[in-house]
Amino acid sequence: MRGDGAHALRRFSFNQATSQHWPLPEVVAGCVAGGVPGIGLWREPVAAYGLARAAKLVRDAGLEVTSLCRGGFFTADGWREENLRAIEEAATLGTSVLVLVSGGLPAGSRDVDGARHRVADAIAELAPHAAAAGVTLAIEPLHPMFCADRCVVSTLGQALDIAERFDPGVVGVVVDAYHVWWDDTVYAQIARAGARIAAFQVCDWVTPLPEGVLLGRALPGDGCIELRRLREAVDAAGYSGPVEVEVFSAEVWDRPGREVLAASVAGYLRHVA
Amino acid sequence: MRGDGAHALRRFSFNQATSQHWPLPEVVAGCVAGGVPGIGLWREPVAAYGLARAAKLVRDAGLEVTSLCRGGFFTADGWREENLRAIEEAATLGTSVLVLVSGGLPAGSRDVDGARHRVADAIAELAPHAAAAGVTLAIEPLHPMFCADRCVVSTLGQALDIAERFDPGVVGVVVDAYHVWWDDTVYAQIARAGARIAAFQVCDWVTPLPEGVLLGRALPGDGCIELRRLREAVDAAGYSGPVEVEVFSAEVWDRPGREVLAASVAGYLRHVA
Repeated sequence: MRGDGAHALRRFSFNQATSQHWPLPEVVAGCVAGGVPGIGLWREPVAAYGLARAAKLVRDAGLEVTSLCRGGFFTADGWREENLRAIEEAATLGTSVLVLVSGGLPAGSRDVDGARHRVADAIAELAPHAAAAGVTLAIEPLHPMFCADRCVVSTLGQALDIAERFDPGVVGVVVDAYHVWWDDTVYAQIARAGARIAAFQVCDWVTPLPEGVLLGRALPGDGCIELRRLREAVDAAGYSGPVEVEVFSAEVWDRPGREVLAASVAGYLRHVA
Repeated sequence: MRGDGAHALRRFSFNQATSQHWPLPEVVAGCVAGGVPGIGLWREPVAAYGLARAAKLVRDAGLEVTSLCRGGFFTADGWREENLRAIEEAATLGTSVLVLVSGGLPAGSRDVDGARHRVADAIAELAPHAAAAGVTLAIEPLHPMFCADRCVVSTLGQALDIAERFDPGVVGVVVDAYHVWWDDTVYAQIARAGARIAAFQVCDWVTPLPEGVLLGRALPGDGCIELRRLREAVDAAGYSGPVEVEVFSAEVWDRPGREVLAASVAGYLRHVA
């Protein structure tokens, strides 16, 4: 059973944001105990724990860091320094994937085209630094409901339009089921993405959305997204990397971390793997 | 001044949903008093007032009914009869535009492709009836945040893929700024739409979105949408019809109707016309 379980979870990764209030050492211990080989990290809890200490913790535990969230926010002041730091942190943590959430419109702006140009320009500026650090800048299209305030990159096609200007090892894309499932062109864009797919994340879509819409996600299988179909599509495009469960949900965050990890594993096995 | 104002408002239409609690006779009187030539109606308040009575009311006031909301919801039981009734109501009210909100996924379903095929099939079934009644079925793409629960038609491109199978006089599209502004292909799709554009609606995008996300719209000019640019784009595509202000907002609904109409006119003149 143990052997079967470990094999079935070979590609599974637990993004730490899924259990927001679970302290990092306990997340790591939980992953090890559960036969989970991968973990997705976030900069803020890593910084709170200490970067070098966090890197040692996950390395000693034998966990693969499948991604670091997040760089981006290119329309904010200080974006350059922040992103250079994020690249270094990814390298220190031993992950080659830095997820980019590109940022929304500057306050008071209506210039969505301008913001989008700024994203492409910023990535061009960061690309040599990412290449030198061995880190892939993974552009994550966010659901269009976040266009104004979080991310002006709203579709996989748009992310690829930017990414394709660069070497695939340096600039890739994130396919997060929550953000792209509604798009009638998503399967064509996944096929187009091919080796550009740097990360694949899953959770589920449920309604009604909560105020602010950020924390309305559900565990895999609890909503209406064809998660397995999307996983099969990224596989068919040539992706064979980790599948991260990443759920932002006030309700999930209130549950004990170990229980959430177990539910994430169960949802993954039943609806994604 | 009166003459100038009337000319400036030549294309302006007030969708009655913008002032949800304003009784129909008062909306009509307000429009007449304000030099507003057009009104967008909804089936439920029209039915509550009486269909024939409402038709006479707006006709006697000299108002053009620029659209009727709404047909659609093709994934619900009884959709055929409901939509046939809606077509007849549009004809009775003297409008050639029946707005279609196509419906989301059936409860428990993950089959978004299937739901989309059902929309196309339903429209094919309704088209001869609409043609006979002189009514255009106007497919409205709704923002992708409504894909699961209100409308699986999520982009203008997707709406056109369906509409283009039919005569442009029978099946068209609605361009509602709120639903399409985020789309990096929207200007290309508006150009493609050309004579398919059956209606153009405006309001504005503000954050944070409220719970359920339905009532989070703002009056034109209060948010981040390039409304004038979109209006110019539909004009360049050949559209010369009404511009409906349609705002769903709990905050706006709490204000007196006459004040909301005046604010809609002001926002239209300043940010759209």
